Amino acid sequence: MLKRLTKASVLLCGALRHGQFIHQHGIRTFHSTIASKIKVDRKDTHIEIQWGPSASPSCSKFNYSWLRDNCQCPLCVHPSNRQKLHSSGDVALSIKPESISIVEGGNGPHLEIKWPSGSLRPHANHRSRSEAHTSVVDVAWLQKQDYSPQAVRQRRNALFKPVYWDGDMYDQRKRSVDYQHFISSNDGLRKALEELRDYGLCFIRNAPTKDKEVENIGRRFGCIRETFYGTSWDVKSIPDAKNIAYTSLDLGLHMDLMYFEAPPGLQFLHCLKNSVTGGESIFLDSFKAVEILKTMHPEDYSVLTQVPVTFHYINDGHHMHFRRPTIVEDDLNEQRMVYYAPPFQGPLEAEEHLVGPFYKAFAKFEEILRDPKLTYRMLLQPGDCVIFANRRVLHGRAEFDAASGDRHLKGAYVDWDDFKDKLRVLDVRK
Amino acid sequence: MLKRLTKASVLLCGALRHGQFIHQHGIRTFHSTIASKIKVDRKDTHIEIQWGPSASPSCSKFNYSWLRDNCQCPLCVHPSNRQKLHSSGDVALSIKPESISIVEGGNGPHLEIKWPSGSLRPHANHRSRSEAHTSVVDVAWLQKQDYSPQAVRQRRNALFKPVYWDGDMYDQRKRSVDYQHFISSNDGLRKALEELRDYGLCFIRNAPTKDKEVENIGRRFGCIRETFYGTSWDVKSIPDAKNIAYTSLDLGLHMDLMYFEAPPGLQFLHCLKNSVTGGESIFLDSFKAVEILKTMHPEDYSVLTQVPVTFHYINDGHHMHFRRPTIVEDDLNEQRMVYYAPPFQGPLEAEEHLVGPFYKAFAKFEEILRDPKLTYRMLLQPGDCVIFANRRVLHGRAEFDAASGDRHLKGAYVDWDDFKDKLRVLDVRK
Repeated sequence: MLKRLTKASVLLCGALRHGQFIHQHGIRTFHSTIASKIKVDRKDTHIEIQWGPSASPSCSKFNYSWLRDNCQCPLCVHPSNRQKLHSSGDVALSIKPESISIVEGGNGPHLEIKWPSGSLRPHANHRSRSEAHTSVVDVAWLQKQDYSPQAVRQRRNALFKPVYWDGDMYDQRKRSVDYQHFISSNDGLRKALEELRDYGLCFIRNAPTKDKEVENIGRRFGCIRETFYGTSWDVKSIPDAKNIAYTSLDLGLHMDLMYFEAPPGLQFLHCLKNSVTGGESIFLDSFKAVEILKTMHPEDYSVLTQVPVTFHYINDGHHMHFRRPTIVEDDLNEQRMVYYAPPFQGPLEAEEHLVGPFYKAFAKFEEILRDPKLTYRMLLQPGDCVIFANRRVLHGRAEFDAASGDRHLKGAYVDWDDFKDKLRVLDVRK
Repeated sequence: MLKRLTKASVLLCGALRHGQFIHQHGIRTFHSTIASKIKVDRKDTHIEIQWGPSASPSCSKFNYSWLRDNCQCPLCVHPSNRQKLHSSGDVALSIKPESISIVEGGNGPHLEIKWPSGSLRPHANHRSRSEAHTSVVDVAWLQKQDYSPQAVRQRRNALFKPVYWDGDMYDQRKRSVDYQHFISSNDGLRKALEELRDYGLCFIRNAPTKDKEVENIGRRFGCIRETFYGTSWDVKSIPDAKNIAYTSLDLGLHMDLMYFEAPPGLQFLHCLKNSVTGGESIFLDSFKAVEILKTMHPEDYSVLTQVPVTFHYINDGHHMHFRRPTIVEDDLNEQRMVYYAPPFQGPLEAEEHLVGPFYKAFAKFEEILRDPKLTYRMLLQPGDCVIFANRRVLHGRAEFDAASGDRHLKGAYVDWDDFKDKLRVLDVRK
């Protein structure tokens, strides 16, 4: 019956007024400075809001259970700690509002939704919550909650819009941030965040060459990620090294700690000494390489998004093991991530029909990675600290002559979670 | 041509001898104490090994590129640091061995595979590697590398075989580990690892009630996972708490830090003081609850494996956000993981047709979680430290009377990566 009425709904344009009531079978048009011109249509299981032709998306749907669940009033979300005070499982099934009306609040238009009693399961600690409840929903807030796949993807991507670079391009536009500015001001930190957001690579200059200074630099972004290498670690040539990084050998392009569930999002390498011959640092934007692969060899690209590579570390009293594809695209939380560390690959564990295609695709990807035009090479000076997005930018090092002088870098990691947290709280968005 | 020859292959049984040659078009049967009775059949792109009827799996296939890539000789894998010295992308495409033969080494049978020159891409640092190469492959090692989906899944699951429990069952079988034994011996640590592996819950007794002792306990398993709560944190009732945990209120069953990419695998709560009325600790095996849901309400179970829940933390200068389904099953690295923390759920971002089913399924899951039979309740005593698998075992706390005494727990986290690492290196397997 309701369905039929809804189908028969007509557009009723009305002037702006307080407490405009939306009939179960009707649509109202609403004008405001914030929402511009919205139309709210009440359906059987949800409301449909037309935000106007210039909005993106132009129309959103909100399920009634969702609306009850996500009431933001102080009885539903704790006003100081922002924790939800009921669970999604407490929402009565198939609930419908008794009424929905539009009210003009001081901060713009709101939907006033009256719920019947019993809209939430009773709870001993929250006696009032099974009573009739009114949700006052900020229309501007609601517009940001559209949960269509496109809108969700758009929000996911809003933090990042990577600028793909090759060696020349990075060389021409490179900018560094002075340590004092970076360490002591949000503005300096914001500059570094922007570089990392767009290019995945950032240089801090004139940092004190103190042993653990790298941890102070890292802590500007969040917590230091401690691993079995320590909170920070030395990169220098030592005898009987447990890791090729700790020799003077050429160190091919790679990423660190691919055998962890969440490999660190940021890596810091702080140069304390560098008087050797050789030992240039090398960086490459793997996202650029993926774009080339995707365009030139779409099948190989597709194989590398499908075939899980096994990463492991079996050494020095540890045995780590984690499987993930080389290229992870468009997942619930990220637009793109790349995982690449050949020395730490274990025997491939992939479906038989994908093994041959994997070797072909991986070779093609590496052909692109070997293009010297893609790499940015530079020599770290004492006091430089390079920061890079470890799941985007590959790093490597040219061989050096260990007898020709001293080379000592100090490294540290920070999680991607923390980096994104900082982007959000400092509102560093495109 | 080769294909035709292979098709025409026949079973040629031969007595054990050194250097038994496997013809391109033939099969040899090989007997040994380790491999028992194996048959190796050379195909166009791979070898096929029959391990014998009692082996599981009874037959494995190994692609030639895979075999070349995973040669374990000291030229291919660094003998001390175990890093691979070439990349999978270096393997020549469509390579085929010149010969494969079976040799009896001191440690059991090996396959001797002769590769033509150019089987790896030339590299300046490894001049010998483009020459002809011989791989000597330990048959016992090879058998463990089967990469069929079943074998890979079997290996993934080998670390764990959870025993699902309810309150009574846990109460009857509960075992604790004495602090001294745990902190000072691998045997004590192994006991704790076994409890956590099987039940996801373990109690250490008689720990010193020192403020940061929980970090010493945590470090037995790996690195302390530092978060914005610190390396360890206080659970006690404080005014204007930023988190409901830091009040005296009833704290519903939940898991911690679901808004991180890799929520900590282990949580530690060390009791320093507990003289209040109330404040029981409550634990529930969510894997048991999932089993019930899966059996009784398979559709709801399926919905909870599909619909990503948004977890967030927007408070105190932080804004974290991560989406993941409530139940994650059979992924590349884990058999099962559960993610549940209603107070930290943000507005659901799910496809429209799944929103209604999600509310129904989530309510059904919580109906199971509310069954008091599933919960194990106990009162932590000063000196007790409870450890639980944070992505399996839900924890909560009964309300307490803050005026009746003191209650002070100290908490810490360790990553799941580290826990699995320890299981592997101490060889704590089923």
